[in-house]
Amino acid sequence: MSRFFSKKYDALVPYVPGEQPQNRQYVKLNTNESPFPPSPYALKLARQAAGDLQLYSDPTCRQLVQTAAEKFGVETDEILFTNGSDEALNFAFMAFCDPEHPAVFPDITYGFYPVFAVLNGIPFETIPLKDDFSIAIHDYLGIEKNIFLANPNAPTGLALSKSDIERIVESNPHHVVVVDEAYVDFGAESCIDLIHQYDNILVCGTFSKSRSLAGGRLGFAVGNKNLIADLNTVKFSTNPYNVNRMTMAAGIGALCDESYFKNNCKAIMETREWAAKELKKLGFMLTDSVANFLFAKHPNIAGKELYLLLKQKGVLIRHFETDRLQDYNRITVGSLEQMQVLLAKVKEILEERT
Amino acid sequence: MSRFFSKKYDALVPYVPGEQPQNRQYVKLNTNESPFPPSPYALKLARQAAGDLQLYSDPTCRQLVQTAAEKFGVETDEILFTNGSDEALNFAFMAFCDPEHPAVFPDITYGFYPVFAVLNGIPFETIPLKDDFSIAIHDYLGIEKNIFLANPNAPTGLALSKSDIERIVESNPHHVVVVDEAYVDFGAESCIDLIHQYDNILVCGTFSKSRSLAGGRLGFAVGNKNLIADLNTVKFSTNPYNVNRMTMAAGIGALCDESYFKNNCKAIMETREWAAKELKKLGFMLTDSVANFLFAKHPNIAGKELYLLLKQKGVLIRHFETDRLQDYNRITVGSLEQMQVLLAKVKEILEERT
Repeated sequence: MSRFFSKKYDALVPYVPGEQPQNRQYVKLNTNESPFPPSPYALKLARQAAGDLQLYSDPTCRQLVQTAAEKFGVETDEILFTNGSDEALNFAFMAFCDPEHPAVFPDITYGFYPVFAVLNGIPFETIPLKDDFSIAIHDYLGIEKNIFLANPNAPTGLALSKSDIERIVESNPHHVVVVDEAYVDFGAESCIDLIHQYDNILVCGTFSKSRSLAGGRLGFAVGNKNLIADLNTVKFSTNPYNVNRMTMAAGIGALCDESYFKNNCKAIMETREWAAKELKKLGFMLTDSVANFLFAKHPNIAGKELYLLLKQKGVLIRHFETDRLQDYNRITVGSLEQMQVLLAKVKEILEERT
Repeated sequence: MSRFFSKKYDALVPYVPGEQPQNRQYVKLNTNESPFPPSPYALKLARQAAGDLQLYSDPTCRQLVQTAAEKFGVETDEILFTNGSDEALNFAFMAFCDPEHPAVFPDITYGFYPVFAVLNGIPFETIPLKDDFSIAIHDYLGIEKNIFLANPNAPTGLALSKSDIERIVESNPHHVVVVDEAYVDFGAESCIDLIHQYDNILVCGTFSKSRSLAGGRLGFAVGNKNLIADLNTVKFSTNPYNVNRMTMAAGIGALCDESYFKNNCKAIMETREWAAKELKKLGFMLTDSVANFLFAKHPNIAGKELYLLLKQKGVLIRHFETDRLQDYNRITVGSLEQMQVLLAKVKEILEERT
């Protein structure tokens, strides 16, 4: 820290992303990336777009917005693209929250929400999940605060139904409910079409998981056109050219290649169910995740120990040190081959202990 | 605007980027892009990197940082990369300014500075340029405020010497002086090596102009390691994976292809001198720009009128409506062929008026 760093950030603790080790090749199941490469059509368009890199990208992302609006069944002024969905979420915190409009989210959820709140000087409250890690929706009804919900939630993988989300949105008409659908394509219901009925729901999404573009950085927000106009005001006051040309083209390609997208989601869901069953056979307890990760604990081995032993054996999973999570690990659903390696290494570890 | 938009942004007027018309092919001399495509090596690396887009980019940009640190003669903890240099500038406003630490910049400079200030709730003061558009450096000595200086300045193209910048830095030891070197490679002196002597200078740069990567979005900040650590705290609280894989690779390629970079800068400087001479022959008055743009006015035609007539004729230049600038236009130095078209169209317009 320098002697010039603003005191307003005294309480700020930056987000810690999952490890990205550069020194060793791991079976990487720690950051919820897709095991599949991007659609060949996405790659083709991205590589073509590189030829014009001397020219600024279109700050309105017009072509991408048109393609996405059609796919998602919304108007072009109801969607905005960002440099990853973290940017969309941060814009939402900036646009709708302030000291008079605090943020509310579950105690266990995406770890970036409290960071965005502190960064922007926004007071926030957390609401504990139930003991089974599910969201007690009654705690969110009629509270009249800005609410941030990851659906499915992370790292639990549990989802609320669209009708439950709708009840929350309907009962807080004077505040914005942000639904972070980073993992929605692996088995939960999207709330995108609720934007036609409610002017206070904002749905955020990402191309990092189901569309295999984590390294391209592409996120989006969908909502009533006035909400999107607000996010655009923030964007054009921060970084108007926030999406680069190659990623914009890749996004169009990924959206157009619908069958590739659907097949990959299906494969990940099948692998998830298979891996969950195998882990249960080994004595693990798991939540009913509908995301592209599993959330698992074992009665005979501490979460951190399993994480460290797997890392030694060349398999990276994600461990969180917080109280309610420390018995568990979050395991990305990779390819069938990656999950077979994981299971073999887990078996070795459990056998070495008996 | 929605009914949920925070009142803290009541005074916020977003930045208006130069037009990016999608409907017609223009000779585009309005956003200071390079007329040259990116280095072939940059393109090759960017296209290769697309193959791994399903994996997150390295949040520390390690390889790019190492390459750049070597080229710029700094340590790896003295440089940070961003999604365009607007992001670096915004991070600097966020990190070092607050209500007790206002920002100061010239009245005529990059139009984004006041937007960043208002966005972040930072009070700011502007110091008028002299009548000849030069910076009166005495106005910046010993003022003990955070100072933002574009060098060369925009849209005037005029530069301060490194020794003048050093005087400003030295005389404000308790505040940060941010030197925005977006246009430095076209004839001004870089202040990067001052970071070894002063812990209160931050130099920002971009790959958008001299390195032909405007559409890739790559900017950077160089400074004392504590200043860079502060910017990293902001980055990791905003968007840790802010630079995508393809752009990171393109940046490495652009840095390695030194002769391509130097030849392009030389060509643009030569074209600038030629075009300036030709415009003077037509009666224009110009500043002595050392940037990749010219700043010109003509006694017989208003700035806005010339801009509009050129647009009708298929040539886009940039006009600013503000008081002290409205007689002028900013004209990007394109290729020799583009400048020949510009001059031919300008001649037509001037002849049509006599």
